[in-house]
Amino acid sequence: MSQKPDERPWDDLIELIDAKQPEGIIAAIDAIPEREIALILSRLDDEDRNWLLTLLDPSDAAGLLEDISDEQAAHILSELSPDDAGRILDELPQDQAVDVLSELDEADAEDILQSMPPESADSARELLNYPKDTAGHLMITEVLYYRDSLSIGDVNQDLQKKQDLYRSYHIQYIYVIDANHCLVGVMRIHDLLFSSKSSLLRDVMIGNPISVNGNATLDEISDAFAQHSLLALPVVDDAGILLGIVLPVAVEEAKRKRTVKHFLWLSGIVGGEEFRSMPLYKRSGRRLSWLTLNIALNIIAASVIALYQETLAAAIALAVFLPMVSDMSGCSGNQAVAVSLRELALGLLRPGEILRVAYKESTLGLINGVLLGILLGIVAYLWKGNIFLSLVIGVALAGNTLVAVTVGGMLPLLLKRLKIDPALVSSPLLTTVTDMCGFFLVLSLASTVLPRISV
Amino acid sequence: MSQKPDERPWDDLIELIDAKQPEGIIAAIDAIPEREIALILSRLDDEDRNWLLTLLDPSDAAGLLEDISDEQAAHILSELSPDDAGRILDELPQDQAVDVLSELDEADAEDILQSMPPESADSARELLNYPKDTAGHLMITEVLYYRDSLSIGDVNQDLQKKQDLYRSYHIQYIYVIDANHCLVGVMRIHDLLFSSKSSLLRDVMIGNPISVNGNATLDEISDAFAQHSLLALPVVDDAGILLGIVLPVAVEEAKRKRTVKHFLWLSGIVGGEEFRSMPLYKRSGRRLSWLTLNIALNIIAASVIALYQETLAAAIALAVFLPMVSDMSGCSGNQAVAVSLRELALGLLRPGEILRVAYKESTLGLINGVLLGILLGIVAYLWKGNIFLSLVIGVALAGNTLVAVTVGGMLPLLLKRLKIDPALVSSPLLTTVTDMCGFFLVLSLASTVLPRISV
Repeated sequence: MSQKPDERPWDDLIELIDAKQPEGIIAAIDAIPEREIALILSRLDDEDRNWLLTLLDPSDAAGLLEDISDEQAAHILSELSPDDAGRILDELPQDQAVDVLSELDEADAEDILQSMPPESADSARELLNYPKDTAGHLMITEVLYYRDSLSIGDVNQDLQKKQDLYRSYHIQYIYVIDANHCLVGVMRIHDLLFSSKSSLLRDVMIGNPISVNGNATLDEISDAFAQHSLLALPVVDDAGILLGIVLPVAVEEAKRKRTVKHFLWLSGIVGGEEFRSMPLYKRSGRRLSWLTLNIALNIIAASVIALYQETLAAAIALAVFLPMVSDMSGCSGNQAVAVSLRELALGLLRPGEILRVAYKESTLGLINGVLLGILLGIVAYLWKGNIFLSLVIGVALAGNTLVAVTVGGMLPLLLKRLKIDPALVSSPLLTTVTDMCGFFLVLSLASTVLPRISV
Repeated sequence: MSQKPDERPWDDLIELIDAKQPEGIIAAIDAIPEREIALILSRLDDEDRNWLLTLLDPSDAAGLLEDISDEQAAHILSELSPDDAGRILDELPQDQAVDVLSELDEADAEDILQSMPPESADSARELLNYPKDTAGHLMITEVLYYRDSLSIGDVNQDLQKKQDLYRSYHIQYIYVIDANHCLVGVMRIHDLLFSSKSSLLRDVMIGNPISVNGNATLDEISDAFAQHSLLALPVVDDAGILLGIVLPVAVEEAKRKRTVKHFLWLSGIVGGEEFRSMPLYKRSGRRLSWLTLNIALNIIAASVIALYQETLAAAIALAVFLPMVSDMSGCSGNQAVAVSLRELALGLLRPGEILRVAYKESTLGLINGVLLGILLGIVAYLWKGNIFLSLVIGVALAGNTLVAVTVGGMLPLLLKRLKIDPALVSSPLLTTVTDMCGFFLVLSLASTVLPRISV
């Protein structure tokens, strides 16, 4: 799978596209490894890409979009006419189509839905009505269900008749419904092999099947899968009517996307994925929006230094250590933030357990603070040979590490209780606190022993 | 699912454990929501937890471990005797048992394997022989396969006979092998419903099935699933012999774990997940190992300030801006790091495309640098009313942002080419570069206009 940078399996395709030459396009696409599709689509300019996608059969075009991320697919479809986009979207697996639609502006999504066959559009709208990461949003409505009054023979006959249609379904179970379309039972597909043809579903089915409500959250669905070893989980509405099924892979994927989002937030990429194929103004603008918040926080923190200018001027060596103390404590604190975020995600920590975290982190913060403080104190002594300077730096780093680790551990829990997503703001807030506290500790300690460290 | 902190559904269980009272334990466990299991296990001390797990049937104990993370399960098993651990591990689904074993020290894992039934141990060892995140490691060996010379009727009969055994299998397909145990075909389980009982497998099977080698990487497996819409992917060795199957959910889970690992690395948690239930010395030591690397990098960066002490002493206001310029640029650079890491993970970027990234990021870095530089320059002017100071700060931030963003975008690609995992070290390396460069720009620019900014 590893490819040298000079091998370019897509050269043929690019040539055909440049020449706007339809013949041979399909063969050229087939020659490209799946993993390169996203890369190529991202490198074509809008005109070339639109030409290619409208030239292809909608199902072939959908095949290309299946291999790329939802954000990228949404971006690509938004550049097409709603009619073309609708035709392609209609060929995508339903859950992916909904994922892509939910990445678009609402107006763009509605334009595309208008152009789709009414039954596809309606069933997509039904899923879009549910908030992201709920069962209703993650489910697929392509599900096999039969009335409880039918026989095993009836079901086998129907399965055989519609083989081709069902081939694309994820058939693990058939679901059994009553006259009101309410879910009343389930059968594993291969149990159909072993039941007599004349048995009625209601007699051989497993009754009271496990199901989740359309509004169930990702964590609730995940729990249900963990608790009952199932290959699919039926989704019902408040009245018990069968709406669709959620597959384990959709749950894992949604959980992975949530982790990716937190990963990006932690690095200051907010508002969704950024691709370098996006327009420069958009990339620059989104990054700036987060940076300007940060600059404001930085100004607040640095203002502490302004208060102690005389101290600093009198002992200029301190200036070397100011950024070190604040940076190091920031690193220590971010470790504690990460552990709290993970423990919250894994259910190992309740948002109310702030005191427990404070205790666990302050003991660790004290140990690591003292050790790091001794280390940096020794460095300071080796450099300047001044024991007071060395003490100021060491004690400040120890104290600031204790504060940073304790606050860092608690901050995600506090934010969670305030209903703010802790992955988004824990890190910038923590940095501000540890910067201010670090500057204050170094400079205020120094001012108490000032004459002795003015070397 | 949301629970108030004062509701404690595990109180009954804790009481029974404290009293070492076996009766009613099972009922008390059943009363606890699945999601709380991990939390409770993490809060029991080793003695209580060992008492509970050895009291339970191995299969009930395994049920508890199924609901928690592999790292936590490994930690818990390592506190039990190898015999007890082996009995419980043998009841876990095979892929999870292997995941847990691979979190243990090799010696501990081998002790436990020794105590397991030889056939379970051997098949687990076979999977453990493959490196993490390869098909051989991710697969399950519980797979249905039949000789190509058998008939559909034979298969149906066998399925019916062994229903109970197969109930726990993930049956989507049956695989067809030749006399040498080589994979030669596949059939969907529900196609068994539609084939005549007398047909031979070799006549009705789909020949030349898609498969992956045991050494296939996570990305290769993921590609194969993306390319062919399959519910399971057979794994073969170099000779084509069927080894097992990989399920899509195992792939998604492995990808999610990789993202989690990168997320933790980015926050300075290296060496695996940290839980607050781990011993303090272990948590402290692992965090310190990363922090001491960071302190070394920080000392290098700060040494630039030491070179310019006279400049700084002459214009002490600069000290306020030094950490701001370096922090802000660090933030800008980390955004570029995150985008490169994501584009690499999504296959939107080849490690060789350093120049493309340099171009894309330097244009963005120039724009954002100039805008942020103007902003901070204005702040500096409002504070001190000195246009030279304001210019020094603004130009330094603009220049350092340009450097940080460009280096930040390129660094993950460079590390990847050097076969170093970019998620591990990009961020600390980048911070060192931007700190050094930021300090240098502010202080060297200031020294050129020194008399004019000594306010």
